[in-house]
Amino acid sequence: MAKIDTRLPKGMRDFLPSDMLKRDYVFGVVRDVFETFGFEPIDTPVLEMRDTLLGKSGEDADKLIYYAQHPGGKEELALRYDLTVPLSRFVAMHENDLLMPFRRYHIAPVWRGDRPQKGRYREFYQCDADIVGIPDMSADAEIISVVATALKRLGFADFTVKVNNRKILTAIGIFSGVPDAQLGSLYRSIDKLDKIGLNGVVKDLRDNGLPEDVVNRMVGLLDLRGENVPSLDMLAHLREQLDGIGLGQEGITELEQMVEFMDALAVPSDSVEIDVAMVRGLSYYTGPVFETVITKPDNLGSVTGGGRYDELIGLFRKQSLPTTGTSLGIERIIDLLDLLDLYPPELTGTVVQVLVTVFGADTQRDSMRLTSELRAAGIHAEAIMQLQKSLGKQVQYADRKGARVVAFLGPDEIASGVVKFKRLSDGQEVTAARDRATLAVRDLLAE
Amino acid sequence: MAKIDTRLPKGMRDFLPSDMLKRDYVFGVVRDVFETFGFEPIDTPVLEMRDTLLGKSGEDADKLIYYAQHPGGKEELALRYDLTVPLSRFVAMHENDLLMPFRRYHIAPVWRGDRPQKGRYREFYQCDADIVGIPDMSADAEIISVVATALKRLGFADFTVKVNNRKILTAIGIFSGVPDAQLGSLYRSIDKLDKIGLNGVVKDLRDNGLPEDVVNRMVGLLDLRGENVPSLDMLAHLREQLDGIGLGQEGITELEQMVEFMDALAVPSDSVEIDVAMVRGLSYYTGPVFETVITKPDNLGSVTGGGRYDELIGLFRKQSLPTTGTSLGIERIIDLLDLLDLYPPELTGTVVQVLVTVFGADTQRDSMRLTSELRAAGIHAEAIMQLQKSLGKQVQYADRKGARVVAFLGPDEIASGVVKFKRLSDGQEVTAARDRATLAVRDLLAE
Repeated sequence: MAKIDTRLPKGMRDFLPSDMLKRDYVFGVVRDVFETFGFEPIDTPVLEMRDTLLGKSGEDADKLIYYAQHPGGKEELALRYDLTVPLSRFVAMHENDLLMPFRRYHIAPVWRGDRPQKGRYREFYQCDADIVGIPDMSADAEIISVVATALKRLGFADFTVKVNNRKILTAIGIFSGVPDAQLGSLYRSIDKLDKIGLNGVVKDLRDNGLPEDVVNRMVGLLDLRGENVPSLDMLAHLREQLDGIGLGQEGITELEQMVEFMDALAVPSDSVEIDVAMVRGLSYYTGPVFETVITKPDNLGSVTGGGRYDELIGLFRKQSLPTTGTSLGIERIIDLLDLLDLYPPELTGTVVQVLVTVFGADTQRDSMRLTSELRAAGIHAEAIMQLQKSLGKQVQYADRKGARVVAFLGPDEIASGVVKFKRLSDGQEVTAARDRATLAVRDLLAE
Repeated sequence: MAKIDTRLPKGMRDFLPSDMLKRDYVFGVVRDVFETFGFEPIDTPVLEMRDTLLGKSGEDADKLIYYAQHPGGKEELALRYDLTVPLSRFVAMHENDLLMPFRRYHIAPVWRGDRPQKGRYREFYQCDADIVGIPDMSADAEIISVVATALKRLGFADFTVKVNNRKILTAIGIFSGVPDAQLGSLYRSIDKLDKIGLNGVVKDLRDNGLPEDVVNRMVGLLDLRGENVPSLDMLAHLREQLDGIGLGQEGITELEQMVEFMDALAVPSDSVEIDVAMVRGLSYYTGPVFETVITKPDNLGSVTGGGRYDELIGLFRKQSLPTTGTSLGIERIIDLLDLLDLYPPELTGTVVQVLVTVFGADTQRDSMRLTSELRAAGIHAEAIMQLQKSLGKQVQYADRKGARVVAFLGPDEIASGVVKFKRLSDGQEVTAARDRATLAVRDLLAE
């Protein structure tokens, strides 16, 4: 009979147990940090009504959304593209059951029909934390604090939180005299500053047909962003430059407030950088935007991104609710933990602690009974099931699997009322009375 | 502007934090029990190639599968219908990376375009544990042991594991002289025994046009299944009746072996019932089938089901691999824990332990600093962000949210270098030196 192809959809992955142990560890740390900050879990369906998703994250996003349908079903559905639009729909739908501010986290997969490439997948997890209902910068500072705490807890020693405010970007456009219609392409040029340098941006702006005086005014402002200028000094200078542009003054005040609140929340000030050239792509941001970049041992790129989007919930509800939040690039973080060898050593690649060997059919049930007792004591145990395997092969299996202790319960041991245990790491052997088996294993595992 | 409808797809659900805390508790217990038994986690994509899924679980299943496509994408995809077919594809695909036996668990949502009704959803979680590579009944007994342990750990005191073997069902058909073409409708009639009684089955069989002597032979066998007949005696009697029918003898031997192995694994024998009338719907079962029914305080129906499917992996691989496993009806289990009030009392509906009040803008940063310190000590803490709220309203918010302790850090406390805490359950108040705040909270939470 022709066999069915075992092919997976492009850009999608299986996870083996060794992958899952790492992923569960990362999700566990993040969940723990989120809850320490009072964020509470929610979940939403993978499938949403198509109309809920389309048009919320910009045209580029719309092209990447997967459609779904049940043949015979009338509903036009789609797989969620992110966790932010579902949150907005969720808040509008359940507002009577939610206390404001609503702090929620959501760890779940999303789907994007992007071109797959190294580190970019069509199905991937997002880890989001958002605060709904607070217009003040205390909420944005909380978001940055939770991000910094999570990264630290995962073992990242050196990272920079970059902060900007969309209002400042708009004000820079106004200040420089960029026509409204060209603001989008202005942002796209500025966003490339880190990659192509100030000269590159200048060329880009000129290529886009901006007049020379506009380009020069812009460059003067962007030049403020020197490596060695303390953030608050830079902001004070920017405030003078943007004198008379209300939106710019507002954005600067917001950034200054954020800096104060981050300080109260013990976010180390040397890990925060105000970067007036940082844009963040999403169309729905309205105020502060932020991202985190791992800076050592190398510049390893951005691992979190977020911002304030005060108008999005208003698409689903008469009055919007001010909201700010972040998304941890958890797939990237998982890859980096591997690269930087930051996983704790106890993630050995197996959940099994004790492998109970079986001498033969006559003693198999004794081995199973022992296994069952160990389990009742909370020890992860497995008994050999392939009786045709020699004892040597059984120990080999335990070793390859990564079990820490092997148990022997043959006819001799049974006759003498004992069990023999061997720790694989150092060969240490212990013979214990049958009714003290659990204690003996505990000792071997503890050392 | 017209607002977007917040409608969810039919049969799909949002989960509020209070739901999630319960769900995470249940998943956590099940995961823990699975790992104690040496089962290891895997994950597979939600989307599979359509050809991977279609035709594996029977015609009825095919009709319920959701199709998905990325507009512009060429792949014909589908959302997984269960976790068993993906496991079979997974094993065939990764066989070189897996040690046999492969014990895996998988906790993940699946989709079925079923008619939604109370307790039945179109998106729902499954919790599966399977053992790949072992043809012996020791594996089936392990599966039943892990199910019984999980249900006990969740607090279910009274349940019955029903066991049968497809080979016996086939043999009953042969014994009674049912033509092969009618075996399917025979099973469907027998499956209804519990609902419609022996007389109902007799009527059903006659209606299906089975000759009177066939019906009578069948009834004689089904009658064996008396409430008070010990399972092994019943099997011995059945063995005599099915004398000469090889498949029947094999099925009976397998059941007898399972009973012995379950005993070795300390599955209480009075919770196991051999039920030769139990069928289990899925077309791919080849040997033992089992389900668990909650029996007290009432007969609350089946919460787990499973069986051996030795041929399924063979659809994806030259040689099949013997496999047996179970699926916990986790959505039903979650509903029953509510119904029977079996959730632990500490699931209070919030993750927040301490709510730090804010007296005004002047002291806000002090409150944030305190919150940050509590968090650093692992205490779940949140500071009030709505400064316009009176202190009374802030405490009310803490109470409604379910926080256990409220902290007060006003100008007076700051001047005296102290913090005041109040435990909401009993009104107990403590004033602590500022640098002993964390210790004071720990005490209040511990009592």
